[in-house]
Amino acid sequence: MYDVGNIAIIGSGSWATAIAKIVVEHTHHIGWFFRHDDKIEDFRRLEHNPAYLTSVHFDLNEVTLSSDINRLIQDYDTLIFVTPSPYLKSLLKKTKAKLRDKFIVTAIKGIVPEENLVCTEYLRKIHGVPDENLAVIGGPSHAEEVAMERLTYLTVGCTDTEKAQAMTQALASHYVKTKVSPDVIGIEYASVLKNVYAIAAGICSGLNYGDNFQAVLMSNAMQEMERLLNAINPIQRSMTDSVYLGDQLVTGYSNFSRNRTFGTMIGKGYSVKSAQMEMEMIAEGYYGTKCMKEINRHLHVDMPILDAVYNILYERISPQIEIKLLTDSFR
Amino acid sequence: MYDVGNIAIIGSGSWATAIAKIVVEHTHHIGWFFRHDDKIEDFRRLEHNPAYLTSVHFDLNEVTLSSDINRLIQDYDTLIFVTPSPYLKSLLKKTKAKLRDKFIVTAIKGIVPEENLVCTEYLRKIHGVPDENLAVIGGPSHAEEVAMERLTYLTVGCTDTEKAQAMTQALASHYVKTKVSPDVIGIEYASVLKNVYAIAAGICSGLNYGDNFQAVLMSNAMQEMERLLNAINPIQRSMTDSVYLGDQLVTGYSNFSRNRTFGTMIGKGYSVKSAQMEMEMIAEGYYGTKCMKEINRHLHVDMPILDAVYNILYERISPQIEIKLLTDSFR
Repeated sequence: MYDVGNIAIIGSGSWATAIAKIVVEHTHHIGWFFRHDDKIEDFRRLEHNPAYLTSVHFDLNEVTLSSDINRLIQDYDTLIFVTPSPYLKSLLKKTKAKLRDKFIVTAIKGIVPEENLVCTEYLRKIHGVPDENLAVIGGPSHAEEVAMERLTYLTVGCTDTEKAQAMTQALASHYVKTKVSPDVIGIEYASVLKNVYAIAAGICSGLNYGDNFQAVLMSNAMQEMERLLNAINPIQRSMTDSVYLGDQLVTGYSNFSRNRTFGTMIGKGYSVKSAQMEMEMIAEGYYGTKCMKEINRHLHVDMPILDAVYNILYERISPQIEIKLLTDSFR
Repeated sequence: MYDVGNIAIIGSGSWATAIAKIVVEHTHHIGWFFRHDDKIEDFRRLEHNPAYLTSVHFDLNEVTLSSDINRLIQDYDTLIFVTPSPYLKSLLKKTKAKLRDKFIVTAIKGIVPEENLVCTEYLRKIHGVPDENLAVIGGPSHAEEVAMERLTYLTVGCTDTEKAQAMTQALASHYVKTKVSPDVIGIEYASVLKNVYAIAAGICSGLNYGDNFQAVLMSNAMQEMERLLNAINPIQRSMTDSVYLGDQLVTGYSNFSRNRTFGTMIGKGYSVKSAQMEMEMIAEGYYGTKCMKEINRHLHVDMPILDAVYNILYERISPQIEIKLLTDSFR
């Protein structure tokens, strides 16, 4: 059986904190990268992440906090990346330590901007990490619910089944159930698209479309996702697996989803800029929409929902008009 | 092109009223069966259904109301049945008029009790209506949203594609979009199961399982539904079609769903009897659970969600225990 060895978490947001909680319960030791030393000081004083999931207490004897990414990469066998996707590239540019012999797991839900690659593709192409050393964690998982130890199902995708299984063992607990999948980039693309579709759901809600239509939108979103995944990674997969359908539902039907909230404001007539200012942040799906649109320029997959969201967000076409056209394309 | 001729609606609840509204806008004439003459008098006085969707006005010149089921069957070419499923059998027992030459469309979401047959099976086996004269209307459709003319997608299932298309033309409008399907009994069984799964969603919500788990429950429900449909009607179908997935979502994620509300009370510890008394009604899925369990005794399909709901509702096994067992069977 493969041994995942020492595990380090790279990232300090809420999902990173949830994964740190899950892992340290098993291993009783993790490395944990924070960008800024003052946050590390705050963490040591408070015994929790000062900014996210503050209710989750960590035993400082079990957590090695560090802002030295090279040191962490050198010292740890398995690295779980959970940074925002736009930050991954600049972070890795600074690293001198070799990544290719490490077991690299990404829980990042996003595309590396400019490159238009999902994270495992980026790590393989730019950093030479071989496929069998790359894994992804997916599944429907509000970090807040993990913090409360509410039952959550995670899927580990890796082309090396033994490694995937080893990783699931480091994640499983009384509130985390796990499964394995060979569909690494399928899971990653699905997790990018779900944010685009959550924006679409928000836009339709803002335009006063009802529950009947939202259900049709989600159904068509799953069909569109399937078409894209089949173009990118044509393997046998069931779209009703929780890593695809469940992840879409937890985002598309959640009122806490930032992407859905952003979409709702757009549907209500806010401009992109004023919605972003009002929210004091930029929803991931905003970038995801542009990246996916560019990726699909070469693939030519029929993706009317992606096109509609892109036209609304980037071409300033009225949501009313775009969604009306979209409804005609649905079945 | 097939002509659906004169259309009569058999049933007086909210979904019947929504369908009456949709049809009469096209045809400018419908027959409409009400069981009780006093309701017909109220309707004539108020110009709307006195009990359901009271905001929907009907032009009395366009509606022939009648409590004489035999007369309606004789006078009309196409009959849309939208009664509660437990009532269909006793209603049809009273009829002397022949059904087999009529085009019979059912929008009933339920099983004929004791017979353990969906409505088209019952009409074929007991009343000799041939397959090509039987159709079903499915899809995600809160009647209240149809009343408000919010965009809704309906699917007409019929083995005779021409007839299905003719029926969709009588339903399509600026707020109703339609498609056809050959999967008549698949659509009917799906619409029974969705209520069972809505009860399950309610039970889990009552037990304080979170959104992460609900998304996994819905994913597994779709997988379980697919297994059952493949056993009953093994044709090529995509479970992400809105008539299956959309219909499940609009029920499973709706707080207005009576089945979900009933389940929530059960999850919170109410007995079946006290939940039914509190709600002043019996959720359709309560009967659907028993019928599906009996149907599956011969089919032996792996249906852990159905089994769990059955054990909770009919075997008085604690929801905590059953749902805990269920979570172990999920992926």
